[in-house]
Amino acid sequence: MDQEHCRRLDAADPLAGWRDAFELPPGVIYLDGNSLGPLSKSARRGLDLALEQQWGQGLILGWTESGWLEAPQRVGDRIGSLIGAAPGQVVVSDNTTVNLYKLAAAALALRPDRCTVLIQADDFPTDRFVAAGLAERSRGRVQVRHFKPDDIAGSLDATTALVILSQVDYRTGRLHEMRRLTRTIHEAGALALWDLSHSAGAVPVELDTCDVDLAAGCTYKFLNGGPGSPAYCYVARRLQTQVRSPIWSWLGHAEPFVFGPSYEPGPGPKGFITGTPGILGLATLEGALEAWRGVDLALLRQKSLDLAETLIALVEARCPGAGLELLTPREPDLRGSQVSWRHPQAQQLIAELIRRGVIGDFRPPDICRFGLTPLYLGFEDVWHAVDRLRSVLASFAADVSTTTTAVPATP
Amino acid sequence: MDQEHCRRLDAADPLAGWRDAFELPPGVIYLDGNSLGPLSKSARRGLDLALEQQWGQGLILGWTESGWLEAPQRVGDRIGSLIGAAPGQVVVSDNTTVNLYKLAAAALALRPDRCTVLIQADDFPTDRFVAAGLAERSRGRVQVRHFKPDDIAGSLDATTALVILSQVDYRTGRLHEMRRLTRTIHEAGALALWDLSHSAGAVPVELDTCDVDLAAGCTYKFLNGGPGSPAYCYVARRLQTQVRSPIWSWLGHAEPFVFGPSYEPGPGPKGFITGTPGILGLATLEGALEAWRGVDLALLRQKSLDLAETLIALVEARCPGAGLELLTPREPDLRGSQVSWRHPQAQQLIAELIRRGVIGDFRPPDICRFGLTPLYLGFEDVWHAVDRLRSVLASFAADVSTTTTAVPATP
Repeated sequence: MDQEHCRRLDAADPLAGWRDAFELPPGVIYLDGNSLGPLSKSARRGLDLALEQQWGQGLILGWTESGWLEAPQRVGDRIGSLIGAAPGQVVVSDNTTVNLYKLAAAALALRPDRCTVLIQADDFPTDRFVAAGLAERSRGRVQVRHFKPDDIAGSLDATTALVILSQVDYRTGRLHEMRRLTRTIHEAGALALWDLSHSAGAVPVELDTCDVDLAAGCTYKFLNGGPGSPAYCYVARRLQTQVRSPIWSWLGHAEPFVFGPSYEPGPGPKGFITGTPGILGLATLEGALEAWRGVDLALLRQKSLDLAETLIALVEARCPGAGLELLTPREPDLRGSQVSWRHPQAQQLIAELIRRGVIGDFRPPDICRFGLTPLYLGFEDVWHAVDRLRSVLASFAADVSTTTTAVPATP
Repeated sequence: MDQEHCRRLDAADPLAGWRDAFELPPGVIYLDGNSLGPLSKSARRGLDLALEQQWGQGLILGWTESGWLEAPQRVGDRIGSLIGAAPGQVVVSDNTTVNLYKLAAAALALRPDRCTVLIQADDFPTDRFVAAGLAERSRGRVQVRHFKPDDIAGSLDATTALVILSQVDYRTGRLHEMRRLTRTIHEAGALALWDLSHSAGAVPVELDTCDVDLAAGCTYKFLNGGPGSPAYCYVARRLQTQVRSPIWSWLGHAEPFVFGPSYEPGPGPKGFITGTPGILGLATLEGALEAWRGVDLALLRQKSLDLAETLIALVEARCPGAGLELLTPREPDLRGSQVSWRHPQAQQLIAELIRRGVIGDFRPPDICRFGLTPLYLGFEDVWHAVDRLRSVLASFAADVSTTTTAVPATP
C-alpha cells in the first residue's frame, strides 16, 4: 500500500467523476463531511434559482408558481429514494431535534399502556434530551431507560413503548443492524424510531424492507444540504392513519388554505410538517440532492469501506506506536462511513492537521474522527492525509510540551 | 389628492432613500410585503458571505470561526431592538408554529392549577391549531376557549392560564392594544403570548414596557428575511428562570459541547433554541435586518399611516360605487400596516391587478389585502396602484362575465 497504489485505486474508481460536482477549497483534504458536507455546484444552482428568480423576481408568487408549498413532500420523496422509503412517507421539515420530538411524542401516544422509552446512554445528546424532556412533561407516566444495542433483548419488556436508536454511532462509527434490531423491538410490542443523521448518504438504509416505524435525520452531513439544512421525518405507510404529530400547524393541515375552525392533519407524513418552511435552505438541499442522481448506492458503500480500509491500513503501517487506538469496529459490516481513533492529544492533533489542510474533527475527551465521503474523496487524498498525520505525530514525539490549540467541537 | 400631490409627499419623505436598499423587480408595485418582504441588497450580501466564505471555503470551521453558533442569540437581539425587547430575551429558532408551541406549552406548565387557553375564534390558523393540539394531548386537563379582544374581561376567569393574541389581525389589519390587554390578562392571573408576525417591522411594538410575558413571530413579512426565514421567540427576563421549553435539545443546553448525560437548559431564552439552526436562512435574515439600521420607527409608523390614509382616500375618491367595502378600521390607532377591502369579485380583482403589475393578495372568501411597507413604497406607487385598481373595476363593470382566475392564497 503506497501512494502509487492509491493512485491506481483512484484511476479505477467508478465514482471518481463525482468530485467535479463539488466546490471544495483548493488544497484541503476534507475528512469532515460526516459533520458538514461541502457546497456542490447543484446546491449553488438550487439556491440561486430560489434567490434570484423565485424570491427576487417572483416575490409572493413563489409560493404558488415555484413549487415552494410542495417542497417538503417533493424533497422528502427524493431523500426517501436514498433511505429505502417509497414515496409518500418522508417530509422535510424543521431540524432533527424537532422531528425526533414530534415522532417520539406520536409514538408514545400510540402505546398509551406502556411507559418506557429505551435509548443508549451515550447516544447523541439531542436524542437523549428529547426523550428526557418528554418524560419530564409526562407527569410521571413516561420513563427513560438505557440500553445497549448488543443486549437489546435484555432491556425490552412489556413496558417498552419506544426505542430510539442511531443507526451509526456519532463517535465510534459503529453501524447498528437495523433489520434485526427493529424485528426484536417489534417482537416486544414496541416501536422503533431510528435517527439516520450519521447514516443517510453513507451506508445502505432500507427503512421499508426493515419494517421501520419512524425515522428522522439531518441533511447537512453526508447529504451535503448546507449548514443546518432542514431535516426530515419518515412515517411508515402502515402507521400513517394512526400517528399524529403533537404540533398542529396550518401547513400540516389537510387543506392549508381553507383556514377553517378545526384542524385535520394532512395525509401521510404531511401532518408532521409544521410552519412555513425555510425556502432558501430547502432549495439548497434540493439542489444538493441533484448531485446524488445516478449514484449507485452499492458502489458508494463499497468505496466507503475501501476508503476506510485504506485509511486504517495506512495509519497502522505508517504511524505505529504513536498512541492511536482504533475506536471504530474493524468488521466492515459493523462500520458506518467514518473512522475514529482515541489519542491522548486528540484535540491538538486535529488542530495541527487542520493547520496542514486536513480537516477532521475532535470529540471530547480524546476522539479524532475522520469521515469518508466517496463522492468527493479519493484514495490518494487518504494517502496525503495519513502523510500529514504522520508528520503531526512526529512533531508531538519531538516536542511533547507544545501548547494545546483549542478546537471546539462542532455539530 | 392627485398624482402631483403624491409626488410632493414622496419628495418630502425622510424614508424615501431606503428604497435603494431593496431589489424590487422593475415595473412592480408591491403591496404584499405583509406576506413576504422583498430581497434587499444587504440580505443578498449576508447570504453570499455565508455561502461563499463561510460554508464554501470554511466548511465545518464556519461553526467556530463565523459566529454560526451564536447567530440565534445575536440575530435575536437585533430583532429585539425592533420590538422593544432589551438584549437577552429573544432567540431566532424554528418557525412561528414551533415557537408558539414551545411557548404555549411552557406557559401552561407555569399555571398548573389553571386549565383554559383563550384565543380568538378567527385568529391565524396556526395559532389556533397549536392551542388545540396542546389541549388534545393534555388528556382533558387543558381546554381552548374563544374570546373577542373587545370583550376580554368577559372571557377571563380564574381558570385562564394563557391568552394567545395576534397583535395585528392578518385579514382586517386591526391593531390590538398590547399594553391594555396584557394588563387585563395579568390582572386575571393569566399569561399573555403575543404573535407579532403581522406587527413586527410594521407598527410600534414595546414588549418590555407593555410587560408582555411571551411572544413569537415570523421574519419573512415586514422584516424581509426571505421566504420561510426563521422565526423568533421572546421570553421576558422576569420569567426566564421559570419557563422551560418542552423540546429539549443539544443546542438549547447550557453547555452544548459537554455532551453529558443530563439536560440543563441554557440561560435566558437559550433553552428555547432547538436543533442546529439553518445558517443560510439565518445569514439572509441577519443581512435583511441590516437594512433596518438607522430607521426611525416613529417615522416608519407615521409613513405607514400616511400611506394607508392616501390609499383609502384615493380608493374612495376614484373608485366610488365599485363594491369595495373597507374592512380595516378607519381609526389610525386601531390599524396595522395593511388595508383590506371586501369585494364580491375579490379573487379575480387581485388576479387582474397582478397582471397589471400591482401585487396584493386575496384571502378567502372575499378579501383584498394590501400591505403598506414604508421602507420601499412611495405615495406615487399608491397613486398608480389605485389607478390600475380603478381600471380593473371599470373592466368588471363593462363585462361582469369575465372568468375567474384562480389566485391561491399564500402564507
